[in-house]
Order: sequence, then C-alpha cells, then structure tokens
Amino acid sequence: MKQVKIALLGLGNVGSGVWKILNFNKSEIFKHCGFEIEIKKILVNDINKKRYLDIPDGILTNNFCDILNDDSIEIVIEVMGGAYPALDYMIEAMKKKKHIVTANKLCIALHGDRLFETALKEKVFLYYEASVGGGIPIIKQINESLTANKIEKIVGIVNGTTNYILSNMTESNMSFDKALCLAKENGFAEFDPTDDIEGFDAAYKLSIMSSLSFEAPVHPNNILREGISNIRIKDINYAKKFGYVIKLLAIGTLKNNSIEVRVHPAFVPKNHPFASVKDSFNAVYLKGNAVGDLTIYGKGAGDLPTGSAIVSDLLSILRNNLNYCGINQARNLNNKYDILPSDEIESEYYIRLNVKDKPGIIGDIGTLLGENNISISLVTQDIQTKHQVDLIFLTQKCKEKSIKNFKEKINNYKNLNKLENIIRIENLNN
Amino acid sequence: MKQVKIALLGLGNVGSGVWKILNFNKSEIFKHCGFEIEIKKILVNDINKKRYLDIPDGILTNNFCDILNDDSIEIVIEVMGGAYPALDYMIEAMKKKKHIVTANKLCIALHGDRLFETALKEKVFLYYEASVGGGIPIIKQINESLTANKIEKIVGIVNGTTNYILSNMTESNMSFDKALCLAKENGFAEFDPTDDIEGFDAAYKLSIMSSLSFEAPVHPNNILREGISNIRIKDINYAKKFGYVIKLLAIGTLKNNSIEVRVHPAFVPKNHPFASVKDSFNAVYLKGNAVGDLTIYGKGAGDLPTGSAIVSDLLSILRNNLNYCGINQARNLNNKYDILPSDEIESEYYIRLNVKDKPGIIGDIGTLLGENNISISLVTQDIQTKHQVDLIFLTQKCKEKSIKNFKEKINNYKNLNKLENIIRIENLNN
Repeated sequence: MKQVKIALLGLGNVGSGVWKILNFNKSEIFKHCGFEIEIKKILVNDINKKRYLDIPDGILTNNFCDILNDDSIEIVIEVMGGAYPALDYMIEAMKKKKHIVTANKLCIALHGDRLFETALKEKVFLYYEASVGGGIPIIKQINESLTANKIEKIVGIVNGTTNYILSNMTESNMSFDKALCLAKENGFAEFDPTDDIEGFDAAYKLSIMSSLSFEAPVHPNNILREGISNIRIKDINYAKKFGYVIKLLAIGTLKNNSIEVRVHPAFVPKNHPFASVKDSFNAVYLKGNAVGDLTIYGKGAGDLPTGSAIVSDLLSILRNNLNYCGINQARNLNNKYDILPSDEIESEYYIRLNVKDKPGIIGDIGTLLGENNISISLVTQDIQTKHQVDLIFLTQKCKEKSIKNFKEKINNYKNLNKLENIIRIENLNN
Repeated sequence: MKQVKIALLGLGNVGSGVWKILNFNKSEIFKHCGFEIEIKKILVNDINKKRYLDIPDGILTNNFCDILNDDSIEIVIEVMGGAYPALDYMIEAMKKKKHIVTANKLCIALHGDRLFETALKEKVFLYYEASVGGGIPIIKQINESLTANKIEKIVGIVNGTTNYILSNMTESNMSFDKALCLAKENGFAEFDPTDDIEGFDAAYKLSIMSSLSFEAPVHPNNILREGISNIRIKDINYAKKFGYVIKLLAIGTLKNNSIEVRVHPAFVPKNHPFASVKDSFNAVYLKGNAVGDLTIYGKGAGDLPTGSAIVSDLLSILRNNLNYCGINQARNLNNKYDILPSDEIESEYYIRLNVKDKPGIIGDIGTLLGENNISISLVTQDIQTKHQVDLIFLTQKCKEKSIKNFKEKINNYKNLNKLENIIRIENLNN
C-alpha cells in the first residue's frame, strides 16, 4: 500500500474541514487515489488551544521548520489565509520540493506570478481549486474541462458574505447594518468585514478566474471595484418593484482585444437563475465559444465544501503519483489583451435622487442626463414628505464616463437634496 | 513541436462539431496541450455525400481498416452512435493500442464492462465525458472534482428531446403530438423517438452517472423507467395550478446499503432552479457528504457543446503525453449495494381520474386510497361535462407498490370512466 505524508498550515475553519474529510471519507479517498494519507504535522499558533477535533499528540506544532525540514512530508496544504507568512511558507516549501495545495485567493491573485514561477522551477504541483467558489470546482472546469473553448465571458456570485447580507436585506427587509451584524453573529462575516463588503475578495477571485480564462494577466488593482456598503433597503425595494434583486457580481468579458473586468452590486432580473442564488451559495456562469452557456452553483464557503475542493486537489497530485507534469496546471498568461479603462465600461443604470418637490425637476434632470449622452428608459417619482420627492431613473446602456460626468454636474443642481445611489443594471442575457 | 494523429468514427452532428472545434480553436487547443493535432482519417458511410465542411481529399474513408491498421493514428474518437459496430470498432482499436474518446452512452451503459476491461488490459485511455450531458463536464466532476466525497444523490434533467417537448407543452400550451412533431422538425427528435421519449436515453445516462457516483454496477435494466408519451396538456395545466412544472427526471439515491434509481416524469416546484431548465438544456444536481449541494447546467446537446466535451477528453489524453495511468479513469464498481426494488420506491403522487358526476365518489376513492396506505394531501374536482368530472388527488409519500395495488382496484370501480394519469411529485428539497 502506497503511503504519503502531508502537513497542514492552519487549523481554522477550512483546516478543520480538511481534517474531517480525510478522516471520515478515508475509504472513498483511498479508492480514488490508491494512497493512504497521513497528516503528519499541523502548524497552529497555539498548540494548547482547546479544539473540537480528536488530534493525536505530536501532530500540532507552532514551528514551521518542523514541517519545512521534514523530508518525509511531500505535500503541504496551506489554509492559514492572508498574504504573510503564507506566501513565504509556500515558497520555502516548494523549494524543498513539496507540492502545494492552497485555498489562498489573496496569494494567488496578488502573488501568483512568484508562486507559479517557483512551482515551475522546482517542478512541483501548485493547486488552488479552493481559492475560488469554495466547493465549486471552477478552476478545474476552466483549466481542464473547457480547454477546447475560447472563453468569452465569466459572471460570478463569488462572495458569500455579501450574498448573505443582500439575501437578508431582500427577504427580511433588514437594513444593511442589521444584516451585517447578523452575518457577523452567524460566522458569515469577519470582525473587520472590509475585504468582503467592499468587493476586494470578489476582485481577487475574478482576477484568478479571468487570468485563467482569458490567459492574460488580470491584476486585482485593474478591476473596477465597488462594494455593497452603500446599498439601502430603499434600493432593494425599488429593485423589487422593477423586477430585480441586487447581487454583488464579478464580471469578466473578452471584447475584441481587451478585457473588461468589474466587481459591483447590480440589479439582476428576478427570474434569472442568479437571482435565486441565496445566502452563502456561489454561482459562476461561463460562456465558451464551443460549449455555449455553462453555469455551476454550490456552497461557496464552509469547512466541508472548501475542504472538498482542497482534498480533490490533493488527490489530483496523488493520482499523478506525485509525478510533476507541468502541463496539468497550465497557467499561460501569454495573451496580449489590454484591460478596458473603467471609463469605457458600458452598463444600464438605476439612479436614485432625493429632490425638492417642485415642478420641472424631471425635465431639468432629464436634460442633464441627455447632455451627458445618457438615455432614460424609465423615470418614476415617489413622494416622501411634503417637500421631498424620490426620483428614480433607469437608463439605457451608457458609459461609466458619462455617469461620472453626470454625477459631478448633478451635485451642483439647486433642487437636489441628495444623490442617493447609482447602481448598475445587468440583464445577463449575454 | 509535438504532433499527434487522430481519427474520427462518424461525421454526423457531433463529428462535425469536433472537426469545427479542432479547426477553429487551433491556437487555444495547442496552448492547452502542446500538441498539433492532425485528423488523419474520418470513417463515414458515404464518401461522396455532400457536406458543408471543407475537408481535404484523402481523409474520408468508408473502410474502418484504414484507421485500425494505421499505426500512426494514436487516438480514435467514436461519434457514430449506436451499439454496433461502434462497440466492436472501439474494442479492436484499443487492441491496437489506440486511445478512445467516445460520446456513446449506449455502449458505456450497456457494454461498459467489456470496454473498461479492454482499456485496462491494453493500457489505453477510454474517456466518455460527452456521453452524459453534452457540454456539461459532469463525468470529470464526479470522477475528479468530487473524489473527496461520498456522493449520496444525483438528480438530472439529461434528455434534451423530452425537455424540449415538455417546455413547448408548458409554454405554448401545445399537445404532446404537436410538440413531438415540432421537435422532429427542429432536429431535437429522431425519426423514431422511442429512445428519448420513453426514457431509455435518460436511463443510460443515469446508469453511467450512478455507477460512477456510487461505485457500484447500475445496469439500465435495473432502473425504474417511465417516459413522457402519456403526459397530456391537462396534466401540464394541473401541474401549473398546483405550482409545479413537469420535467423528465433521472434520480439516483444512495440509501443505507441500497441504490434507488429511476427515470420518470415528475412535478417539480416552479420556483426550483430545475423548473427553469428549458428546451435542450441539461442540468445535474449532486449531493456529496463534503461539498453539499452542487448543480451544473448547460447545453445538453448540439454539435459544438458535445464537441467541446470530446475535445476536452482528447486534451486530457494529450496533457498526459499519451502516457496511460490507470487511476485517472478509475471506474471502481466494487461497492456491494443492492438496487432497491421498484415496489419499495417512495414518492408523492398526482392522480387524475375521470369519473361519473355523482355524490360520494370522492369518499369511495378516498377510502380505496386509504385501504392501500395512501394518504391524501389534496383533492379537487373539475366538472368537464354534465356527466363527467375530473378528480385530482395529490398524495403524501407512499410506496410504488401501494400505487400499483390502487391502480388495479380502481380500474374495477363502477363510477370510474378512466384513470387518466399518475405522475410523481418531487419537491427536490433533498
């Protein structure tokens, strides 16, 4: 019987999931890879912390060198998260010829070049299925199942925290602040939720998927990014009124010789399958020039779903008998596409303004929109108090630049109380 | 530059798709596998038939031996369909050490044992992604991405023809016969549509998915199978009235130590994602004990989607440098599960009867249902003419056996005009 020794870096939520799966599904796993897998070491901060897993003595360590210098350990599973020291640990481990499986979207998105260069040089596997979409096998799908295709479009709901918050706002008419509190209470949001609610996490994931799909470098900094912290219950309700729900979307599109990449909240038609992706579920839509439309959805987070992706990566290495063959983790970033400047990105928009209750205002604003090349598809008003009116404009497709210009101008308009929100409308009809 | 020569068996719809993809996406394909692929021969019935592809002279042949005896051909793509002679051709090719990629669900479902035995003995790859779900990478998902899981359930809409017919009946209020005609006209149904509309095709696909997922032999003959030819527009409309749409489902469930496998039309809740899988789209839901719920949907048929699956299989072989490694196509059928006898399968049911218009009939039938251990969850009547009434019963969960007994008894009931239809209700809440 073949045996392999591995180590985990980290034993939080995801690390515990990996531990559980390797123990509970032992026989399935053995049948699929022909190896008996021994977790020899687990790196943790505090060896003495109370844990709810039955881990034998001598496995936990707080010293990375116990893993790095143990030549019997052939595969390292990095589930500690964050850029440092995870990045250094992975690179050092690869230099010792250890294969890597990681769930670290931050490291792959921001430091992928260094990581893949090291893997290539050291001839070790570097797998990262769990970095995007939790249990959803999206990386393998792009990298292996759709190799016959030129991929033209990706649309994803890839952040569980924002989806949980937006689902609660939509279904329970909850304010953003209350929904965020609830997300924290239920373990769906971090103490500092910035990464999630401001769209950074989704941008890392879009960077990874776009780089792979379009085979060109897409740095997270080049992605147009807006979070959901400005979404109010009023926006949710107006969306409903017009037949939409609000979702945080990550969209990558190949257009001629440029790539359009953006992460932002958007109105999604309520009868579109993405509208029913609830709570911490994730969904990714891909359009390939041969396969056509392909959508996958499942649990985007959680110990066992994410652990499932990690262990399947581990088994991919074992099924190759730990023999490195570079082509299997192809990440060619050789295409010479430009990233479309954000000013050029086109969308339909929902614009909500609070204005004085006077005649002629719709006309004034309509004129201002027209002067900025923005055509209106719908306008409606909603009297709030004796002196205040909510005005909602839905626009036809226009450029981001036009909206920026309009924003500047409208803020000087004498009858405006407040420009409340501007949200893109994505009808997702490809 | 590495080169490989391949041959196609068949140049129908799917074969043409493969040809197009290999020609149109040449540069993508080369980047993904490092091989230049030459289609050296294509087996067809009639060399002189007019075709809409620009195929150079000398490639078409009507003699299989031209392919079999050409040692330079290393991979054979079988897209002729049907059991014979496809099965023999594949086996002979494997004996000549040629790798096989096939879309042939019939051969895999009915003769998989012989095929896999030969592949194992000859140490060649035998890939069959395209045999289920067209462009949807469901085989790779089960076989590689979910290896960390014990798979507990599969539910699929896997037959495009029946889904096209049912979609048209539902959306255009079309009769079954008219929808079938339309399907034939538009190339979604064969001249003899029996295989599709009677559920054989779906049963082959369920057999392939269940065998892989549960790692136990599931022969198509052991699958409870009902087609859609008995579905009337009345059933479609009653389904709507109760909040459902009718779909042909393929369901495999692992229950303790037995496997429940069935293909039949069913009421599906109209707000379930499966209800919006329209026309020739396919969807497959899987439940794994680690990943949880995972659903994938996309184009289940067509030249390019199916071709996409075939070419990705081809590239899997090339990315392994044509070096056979058995574990990559693991098809362990070692589990000792029984197939649950169909009498024991439990479902909720919709029962439509046409009866005389007399008092006491609901009572009589209710009693008869009760005597057969069938509890009613709803009953409604719909007066048709002066003397006839439609009675609809929705039942709670009961055994197939109870329904069979009820059917026998009700047919002797003096006030019955006709037992019109019995259709299962699947709420799909796992």
